Amino acid sequence: MHAYRSHTCAELNKSHVGDTVRLSGWVHRVRDHGGVLFIDLRDHYGMTQVLCDPDSPVFAEVEKVRSEWCIRIDGNVKARDEDLVNPKIPTGEIEVFIRDMEVLGAAEELPLMVFGDQEYPEETRLRYRYLDLRREKMQSHMKLRSDMVASMRKRMWDIGFREYQTPIITASSPEGARDFLVPSRLHPGRFYALPQAPQQFKQLIMVSGFDKYFQIAPCFRDEDPRADRSPTDFYQLDMEMSFVTQQDVFDTIQPVMQGVFEEFGGGRKVDADWPQISYADAAKWYGTDKPDLRNPIKMQDCSEHFRGSGFAIFAKLLEQEGTEVRAIPAPTGGSRKFCDRMNAFAQKEGLPGMGYIFWRDKTADAVAQELGIPIKDAAAKLKSGEVEGGMEAAGPLAKNIGPERTEAIRQQLGLGVGDAAFFLGGRPKVFETVAGKARNVIGEELGLTEQDRFAFCWIVDFPIFQKDEETGEIDFDHNPFSMPKGGMEALEADPLSVTGYQYDLACNGYELVSGAIRNHKPEIMFKTFAVAGYGEDEVRRRFGGMVNAFKYGAPPHGGCAAGIDRMVMLLADETSIREVIMFPMNQQAQDLMMNAPSEASAEQLMELSLRVVEQE
Amino acid sequence: MHAYRSHTCAELNKSHVGDTVRLSGWVHRVRDHGGVLFIDLRDHYGMTQVLCDPDSPVFAEVEKVRSEWCIRIDGNVKARDEDLVNPKIPTGEIEVFIRDMEVLGAAEELPLMVFGDQEYPEETRLRYRYLDLRREKMQSHMKLRSDMVASMRKRMWDIGFREYQTPIITASSPEGARDFLVPSRLHPGRFYALPQAPQQFKQLIMVSGFDKYFQIAPCFRDEDPRADRSPTDFYQLDMEMSFVTQQDVFDTIQPVMQGVFEEFGGGRKVDADWPQISYADAAKWYGTDKPDLRNPIKMQDCSEHFRGSGFAIFAKLLEQEGTEVRAIPAPTGGSRKFCDRMNAFAQKEGLPGMGYIFWRDKTADAVAQELGIPIKDAAAKLKSGEVEGGMEAAGPLAKNIGPERTEAIRQQLGLGVGDAAFFLGGRPKVFETVAGKARNVIGEELGLTEQDRFAFCWIVDFPIFQKDEETGEIDFDHNPFSMPKGGMEALEADPLSVTGYQYDLACNGYELVSGAIRNHKPEIMFKTFAVAGYGEDEVRRRFGGMVNAFKYGAPPHGGCAAGIDRMVMLLADETSIREVIMFPMNQQAQDLMMNAPSEASAEQLMELSLRVVEQE
Repeated sequence: MHAYRSHTCAELNKSHVGDTVRLSGWVHRVRDHGGVLFIDLRDHYGMTQVLCDPDSPVFAEVEKVRSEWCIRIDGNVKARDEDLVNPKIPTGEIEVFIRDMEVLGAAEELPLMVFGDQEYPEETRLRYRYLDLRREKMQSHMKLRSDMVASMRKRMWDIGFREYQTPIITASSPEGARDFLVPSRLHPGRFYALPQAPQQFKQLIMVSGFDKYFQIAPCFRDEDPRADRSPTDFYQLDMEMSFVTQQDVFDTIQPVMQGVFEEFGGGRKVDADWPQISYADAAKWYGTDKPDLRNPIKMQDCSEHFRGSGFAIFAKLLEQEGTEVRAIPAPTGGSRKFCDRMNAFAQKEGLPGMGYIFWRDKTADAVAQELGIPIKDAAAKLKSGEVEGGMEAAGPLAKNIGPERTEAIRQQLGLGVGDAAFFLGGRPKVFETVAGKARNVIGEELGLTEQDRFAFCWIVDFPIFQKDEETGEIDFDHNPFSMPKGGMEALEADPLSVTGYQYDLACNGYELVSGAIRNHKPEIMFKTFAVAGYGEDEVRRRFGGMVNAFKYGAPPHGGCAAGIDRMVMLLADETSIREVIMFPMNQQAQDLMMNAPSEASAEQLMELSLRVVEQE
Repeated sequence: MHAYRSHTCAELNKSHVGDTVRLSGWVHRVRDHGGVLFIDLRDHYGMTQVLCDPDSPVFAEVEKVRSEWCIRIDGNVKARDEDLVNPKIPTGEIEVFIRDMEVLGAAEELPLMVFGDQEYPEETRLRYRYLDLRREKMQSHMKLRSDMVASMRKRMWDIGFREYQTPIITASSPEGARDFLVPSRLHPGRFYALPQAPQQFKQLIMVSGFDKYFQIAPCFRDEDPRADRSPTDFYQLDMEMSFVTQQDVFDTIQPVMQGVFEEFGGGRKVDADWPQISYADAAKWYGTDKPDLRNPIKMQDCSEHFRGSGFAIFAKLLEQEGTEVRAIPAPTGGSRKFCDRMNAFAQKEGLPGMGYIFWRDKTADAVAQELGIPIKDAAAKLKSGEVEGGMEAAGPLAKNIGPERTEAIRQQLGLGVGDAAFFLGGRPKVFETVAGKARNVIGEELGLTEQDRFAFCWIVDFPIFQKDEETGEIDFDHNPFSMPKGGMEALEADPLSVTGYQYDLACNGYELVSGAIRNHKPEIMFKTFAVAGYGEDEVRRRFGGMVNAFKYGAPPHGGCAAGIDRMVMLLADETSIREVIMFPMNQQAQDLMMNAPSEASAEQLMELSLRVVEQE
């Protein structure tokens, strides 16, 4: 018999009754039923009930085992009594009577229980990750991650892509975040960098004639930690293709992503229609470039209704150039209580507040005012039908702008009784983020945001440049390596209006994919950088590898990268990326289990020609 | 029609004749046949002949294109004349007459020709890697690598392993080589390390209950460059299993490795029998722990034949303890010329030389001496058969030790006429490396080493400790994390004789796999370290993550890691690892294309609390 097991803990069933078997695993739970010890023995595959009574030659040893001891047992498979069969697990028909036992690894008192649902602080979970990972949820998350990545790979291969590995210890990459540096021992005073993404290399792979590249690629950005971002390394499905248009990239990656969500979504709805929304429209409609389309709310420009109106704040504000009043329609949100809560939310977010209007059935109060009669008379008239009820708009804003403008707003927004609308005014760049958040909260609170659904959209037409409001200088707004629409001519005409062949994929409010058709023409690249104030020398110095390559027959190419950790997080229905990473750093970018980062020895520092200095 | 291509350059055949098509690719070669321009248009998939004459509206533009320009052409598919059909390529039946052309990316004068077989210095090839990679051999090597890795993955999945990613920015790992350090910005003065291998993490994954792990894992060692070693990052097929014995690991990984070699070996013979050779035997027989078994030569201990013999050098040497005379049999090497050449080889390697004996048909010279007659009479007698010829042993050694011992040696080594044997004496540790090299050279030069074959063997029973000859101190000889055979008892008895459950796989003289059954028992681990002079505190400080984990129910586990770059190198029949890495560093660990390593900015250094200091 094998030294450790004849079967896994998920394998035995009725057909094995009478067999002598050997199992290894962890003691999930021990129960003492009147001198009979029942142990749920657990391994990666499942659970088997093993038991022992004083008739067993090893009863005394078995009595000593505790939760999470790793043991090997030999025993006989017995059928369970009909009424003790557990149909929920594959081994529920049998149990194993222990004849022999070996302790493979004892356990000290546990800082974290594997059995049960007790919650522990994240620091405890990360410090004892090897216990945390034994829990059912984490086992399942890690399997999901592994299976999802394998499925992605298979899908990429199936459509003709090959996986190529790019260097990890390399040169600084122009992704805009901060590089992790790696001191060189052989070249004192010099540093390698870890790639923020294999961007330059995948472009070089295209210039090298490989046509279709992908990689499940580790990426490194020295960024401050965040729930949906790892502070050190994270993974992307990185891909690039030659001789393609933007639509080709969409048509290539959508089936892969959609397929993965369908395969691992556990029955949740996966949208097949992925609308393409311009960056400008996304900002206008959703206040963000990663909108959650499960939420049906679409914001609208309502400036015209406030210009010159009796609501002085907005009317005055609209006299300034570049300002706007944006409405967030809130179907079913038509109660003062809800509207006040949302107004408070906006104040918490740092705005003076959100004006609102809501529509309700005409109240006795309103009829009384209208007709100049007491309220109770008005109520009676309404009840008897003598006075027609109908709709009325409530809220201070409605009063200020009057019924005509209010009604025009209602019609524009397509709202009715029981609905509300919120209004934010000013420069869109200032209020859009809060507007987007308000849209989320409204959608959630009113139950408008559909659950159990993955909704996708492409955000396209990112502006290439932006103007610094204070200095008036033009700089890059997004990736400087995207091909500008309209090419050289557009750059020479009105750079600030130029958009690029650059795109993001948003899903349920998260950015999942980012990509572009690249600028592969050196002259257009130099021009693009010149607009942003960078000379040719600077470009050559910083991106020489790629720029040189483009001189030798570069093909048109483009691609994208999908964030793997975030995808698993969404599929696992988690909100922290650390739930789907095997050994994540904590929020201070430390690994307390392995003690990283730690001090280097004097010898190591000397070899690297480095000295640690006090920060000023 | 698509913006860039209706077909790839490998797709068109007779069935397309008459079609209007669009192709994109690189100008591989232009030929001018009396005013008709023929272009071999190349993409990742193949080559299509396109042509143009003055009847084409774009003849003037086509005349301008040069090698490696990237172009798009539109044209009509025409059948080639019967006698111009090229059966070697899939598109050899047709050609495309160019009607329109667009230059997608022009090329300056090329520093490296893609067409043809011209050799270039490695520095040129690496600096212009994107051109080098367009060459047919490199395209094929990279595809081989990609396909091989995919096949490995598939094979691991098929046998129930899942791939899990382990951290890359992490703590120092105890692999014995030098770590690459990564300064932490958030924790000034502290450093992360890049993993030399995911060793600790994969062991933690076992402690976490995952049972079967693998990963195509990037590994990082700050080592000085070598032909078969990358100076920065390299890849391993890393795997680990719980509840297994050493033989289980062998039985698991052999089909994967053998399968990959069979799949990609291009018909070369792949041994199915993988002998297990102890570390001690490998040293004795082959002078190395990574023997090339395609070479049938097996060295033997011949000390007894020299002890007290007339060959004073060896006889005297053997009086010292720990010395030995080792024979390298050289079948078919029986000529003075060859023997002298091998002797010279040994001298070049720093030894005083290699004694030898070779066996030949008795010469007239020998008969003349034996019978005391003139040589020409002896020759006549030999020719006529009056004197029987037969075998004689030649070489100074044979004379010194006399015919009896010489014959005993011949019989032990199983040699005969036309064969030779070489002898090295002294402490095995001193001569074994040269002996191993001599064995290789002898095998090669005599054509004994089989070509077109992959021969594997497991090297097992590595000693855990070694004694420093000078200080007498005991230290680790190999991996300190392997389970010692015989456990606690063996360690307490005679540590220097303890071997571990540790193993390497050698193939054709290269180490391809390394692994072990791990020491998962804290008390045995502390004892092992204690033997080597490390206290518990030191062990906890350096390997705390793993040691702590072992306190909470660690399963027995083991695994191995296979060097992917080396495997591709063997399959591609190359001797430098840089031929099978997309963007390798040069031998000085620099990337001249991307300019790495480079200087960091003052700002970057300040953020990291570092200062570069002059080396003393």
